[in-house]
Amino acid sequence: MGLLLLLLLFLVFISSPAQLPEEDLTNFPDKMKSFISYPSDCEFPIENLPYGVFSTDANPTPRIGVAIGDQVLDLTVVKHLFNGPLLGDRQAVFDQPTLNDFMALGHLAWAEARAVLQRILSVDDQTLQGDASLQDRAFVPLSSVKMHLPANIGDYTDFYSSIHHATNVGIMFRGKENALMPNWKHLPVGYHGRASSIVISGTPVRRPHGQTAPVEGQPPVFGPCRLLDFELEVGFFVGPGNELGQPIPAEKAHEHIFGFVLVNDWSARDIQKWEYVPLGPFLAKNFATTISPWVVTTLALSQFTVPNFPQDPEPLSYLKHSDPFNFDINLEVDIKPPDAALPSTIVRSNYKYLYWTAKQQLAHHTVTGCNLRPGDMLASGTISGEEPDSFGSMLELSWKGTKQVQLIGGSTRKFIQDGDEVILRGFCQGDGFKIGFGSCAGKVLPALPGV
Amino acid sequence: MGLLLLLLLFLVFISSPAQLPEEDLTNFPDKMKSFISYPSDCEFPIENLPYGVFSTDANPTPRIGVAIGDQVLDLTVVKHLFNGPLLGDRQAVFDQPTLNDFMALGHLAWAEARAVLQRILSVDDQTLQGDASLQDRAFVPLSSVKMHLPANIGDYTDFYSSIHHATNVGIMFRGKENALMPNWKHLPVGYHGRASSIVISGTPVRRPHGQTAPVEGQPPVFGPCRLLDFELEVGFFVGPGNELGQPIPAEKAHEHIFGFVLVNDWSARDIQKWEYVPLGPFLAKNFATTISPWVVTTLALSQFTVPNFPQDPEPLSYLKHSDPFNFDINLEVDIKPPDAALPSTIVRSNYKYLYWTAKQQLAHHTVTGCNLRPGDMLASGTISGEEPDSFGSMLELSWKGTKQVQLIGGSTRKFIQDGDEVILRGFCQGDGFKIGFGSCAGKVLPALPGV
Repeated sequence: MGLLLLLLLFLVFISSPAQLPEEDLTNFPDKMKSFISYPSDCEFPIENLPYGVFSTDANPTPRIGVAIGDQVLDLTVVKHLFNGPLLGDRQAVFDQPTLNDFMALGHLAWAEARAVLQRILSVDDQTLQGDASLQDRAFVPLSSVKMHLPANIGDYTDFYSSIHHATNVGIMFRGKENALMPNWKHLPVGYHGRASSIVISGTPVRRPHGQTAPVEGQPPVFGPCRLLDFELEVGFFVGPGNELGQPIPAEKAHEHIFGFVLVNDWSARDIQKWEYVPLGPFLAKNFATTISPWVVTTLALSQFTVPNFPQDPEPLSYLKHSDPFNFDINLEVDIKPPDAALPSTIVRSNYKYLYWTAKQQLAHHTVTGCNLRPGDMLASGTISGEEPDSFGSMLELSWKGTKQVQLIGGSTRKFIQDGDEVILRGFCQGDGFKIGFGSCAGKVLPALPGV
Repeated sequence: MGLLLLLLLFLVFISSPAQLPEEDLTNFPDKMKSFISYPSDCEFPIENLPYGVFSTDANPTPRIGVAIGDQVLDLTVVKHLFNGPLLGDRQAVFDQPTLNDFMALGHLAWAEARAVLQRILSVDDQTLQGDASLQDRAFVPLSSVKMHLPANIGDYTDFYSSIHHATNVGIMFRGKENALMPNWKHLPVGYHGRASSIVISGTPVRRPHGQTAPVEGQPPVFGPCRLLDFELEVGFFVGPGNELGQPIPAEKAHEHIFGFVLVNDWSARDIQKWEYVPLGPFLAKNFATTISPWVVTTLALSQFTVPNFPQDPEPLSYLKHSDPFNFDINLEVDIKPPDAALPSTIVRSNYKYLYWTAKQQLAHHTVTGCNLRPGDMLASGTISGEEPDSFGSMLELSWKGTKQVQLIGGSTRKFIQDGDEVILRGFCQGDGFKIGFGSCAGKVLPALPGV
C-alpha cells in the first residue's frame, strides 16, 4: 500500500510539468542548487543546462550532453529518466548524433526535459546523486570532451538586425544621409548563408584567397584576403519547422526557437566590397562561420528577458508580437595575437541592442511560405552598440581601417592577422549566478600557399 | 575449356571500361541501339540514361532509377550487374533513397556505371534482354512513377551567368550605360539560395505574401505578390566535394560535376525590388525553386559540347580552363493558363548563351576554400539569348511590365497569374536521336487566404 502511494506520488511528480499552465514552465525556483558543485561565476550552473554534441577519446561516437559545472551529463546514459508524458516514448531523440530530433519535438517537450534535468541534478534528488555507479557512467569532465556541431544545419540564414551596425556601415559606404537603406526599418534585412562551412569553436580558419579590386577603375587582382574580419553575432536554432507555403505567425514564433549560440561570421572585407553588388555577400562569407558548441535554451534565457528595442515606424502587422523577446546577454570579443601572453578584450556589446527580435526574424523568413526545418540556424547579424567599444567588427572598430585598435602589450590591429585567435564570449549575469555561452574561438591560419 | 574461355572473355568485357584511357570513356559508339524500343524523338534514348529517384504505388520506397524510352530501369533490381573494378564493392550506392552516395564516387565510377547501363540495355546483350523475369522486376513504366528530389541538397547556390540576362536587367534598373556592374565580366556573380524549398517538378507553387513598396517614398504594404515570375535556369549537381580550405582548380572542376537539371527559380519581383538592397535576394526567391527530376549526366551532354562563350577581358588565371565546357541545350518555356487548351511556348533559349562555364562557377565558388558536398546544387541564373523571344523571364519578356506577351488563343501576360502552369523543357538534338531533360513544371496556386 505504501509502495503504491509512493508510485502514485512519483507518477504525479513525473507528469506534473506538462500539466502546469504553459507560462509556468519558464518560472524557476528561487534558489536552485545542484549536487554538482561549482563557483558562482561558473558558466554552466543548474539555471543554464545548455545542450551540445560531444565525444571522448574513450567513446568517439558523437552524442548529446548537457553542461553542468565542469562536467558533461551524457544523455545517452540517463535517457531512461526522461519518462514524462511527452518524452517517455521519445527517449530515442537522446540517442542521436545531433540535436535535430530533440529540437523537432517542440517547446513543451523542451520544458519537460528541462524539468527532468533540473530535478535529477538537484541537491534534493537522489536519482543520480544517490547512485555512484550511474554517476560514474553519466558524467564526463568538460575538459576531456571534443565538441561537434550541435545540429545538422540544413539552411543557414544571416540577418542584419543591429541598427548601430547597419548605421555604421552605411555611414562608411554611403555617407550619413543615406546610412540606413529605405527598407531597413520596415523589415529585418537578411540573406541566405552557406551551411556547409559552419564549423565548431576551435576549428582553425584558413585566410581565404579571392578576387579584389584594390584600385578603383583598375582591373581586379587575385590573392590572399588583406582585410580579414570577424562579426560578433548570436544565432538561434529552429525547433519544429513549417510546411512549405505555411507561414509561422510572429505571435507563435517563440515556439519554434530552441536555443542560441554565439556566431562569428568571418568576413573578407576586400572580397566583399568587389563581389557583393548586386546579389549580396557570397565568397566573402562562405569560407567559414564559427559557432559556440553549447546551445543555451530559450527557456534558460527567459530569466534575462528585457523590453524589445523601440521600433519607429511601427512594423507591419505580420511582424508584430506583444511579448518581450529580447535578452540581456553581455557579449565580448577577445583577440589573442600569436606572441601575446594575454588576450585583449576589444568589444563589449550586448544582444539587447538588436532592433529586430528573433521572433520577427523568424516570422519574416516564413511569411512567403519558405519552409524552415529543425536544426536550421538563423543568425542576428553583427551586434554593435552605440559606443565605439561596443562595435562588433574590425571594420567598425578601425572605422574602415582609418584607425588602430590597441591591444595589450602595445601591438595594434586594423584587421585580423595570421595567427590571431578571435574569441567571442557571451553571458547573462543573474543574482548569484551566471548563464554562459562558453566561447566561440577560431585561430587564423595563413593563406594556403600555391593557390 | 570452352566455358573457361567464355568466362575469361566476359571478365575482360566487364572490366574493360575502367581500363580504357580516361578520354575514351566519353566516346560513344556511332550507332547505339537498345532492345527497349522508342521513337527517334524520345527524350530518353540509350545515349541519354539520366538518373532519378522514383517510387511507385506498389512500392512507395524512393529508389534510384534510369530513364530509357518510356520505362524506368530500377537500379535496386539490377545493382548486382555493376561489378566493375570501381562499383563492384560499392553496389550499395544504388540502394539509397538519393543519388548523393553515387555522386560522391566520382567521374570514373560514373563512366563505369554508364558503360554497364549501355551494355545491359543494348540490343547486342542478353543479360536483361534474355531474362524475362529480371526484366519484369527491373522495368517500371515511366507513366506510373512518382518522382522525388534526386539528391539531398545540402546547399544551393544560384549564379547570374548569362550576359544577355544581366544586361537586360541592368538596362531596366540602371540604364544602358551602367547595365553590367564593374565586377560582372571578372567573376561569376552568385549568391546562396534556399535549399529547403527546392521542389520536384509537378509540385504546385503557392503565390507568396510579402512586403512591397509600390509607391516610392510611401510606406511599404503587405499582401500577395503582384509580380510573380519564373526564371529559366539549368543547374548542376556536385559529385565529390572538397575539404574546407582546399579550392578545386578550374582545370579539374569537371571531375566534380555529376549532371544537370532544369531549374525554375521562381521570383517575386515586387518583393525583390524592395528587399534586395544591400544583401541580395532573400524572400523574393525562397518560397519555391522547381527542378526537373531526371539528372542528365555530364557524360551524356559531352556529345553536345560547343565552344565556350568568348570572354573579354580574359579572366584571372584561377578561372581559366583550356577545354570547352559549354553545351548546345535547347531550352523552352511554356505557359499554360488554366482555361487554355494548349500551352504557349514563350521562350526559346539555349544553355550555350552562358558567359561563365559551370567549371568556372565551381572553381570560383571554392577558391576561398568554401567546401562543396556531394549533392549540392549550383544553378546558372536566368539564361537569356540576344533575341527578345529568347529572354528567360517575364521581367525581360514584358520588359518590366511595359508590354504584353501574347499567348495562344488571344490571352496575354505581363507576369504569371494564378492557375498558370509554367513548364520548362530542355533537349539536345543529335543525329537521329535527342537527349531530353523531361519537363520542369509548376502550377501557381492563389495566395493563402488570411495571412
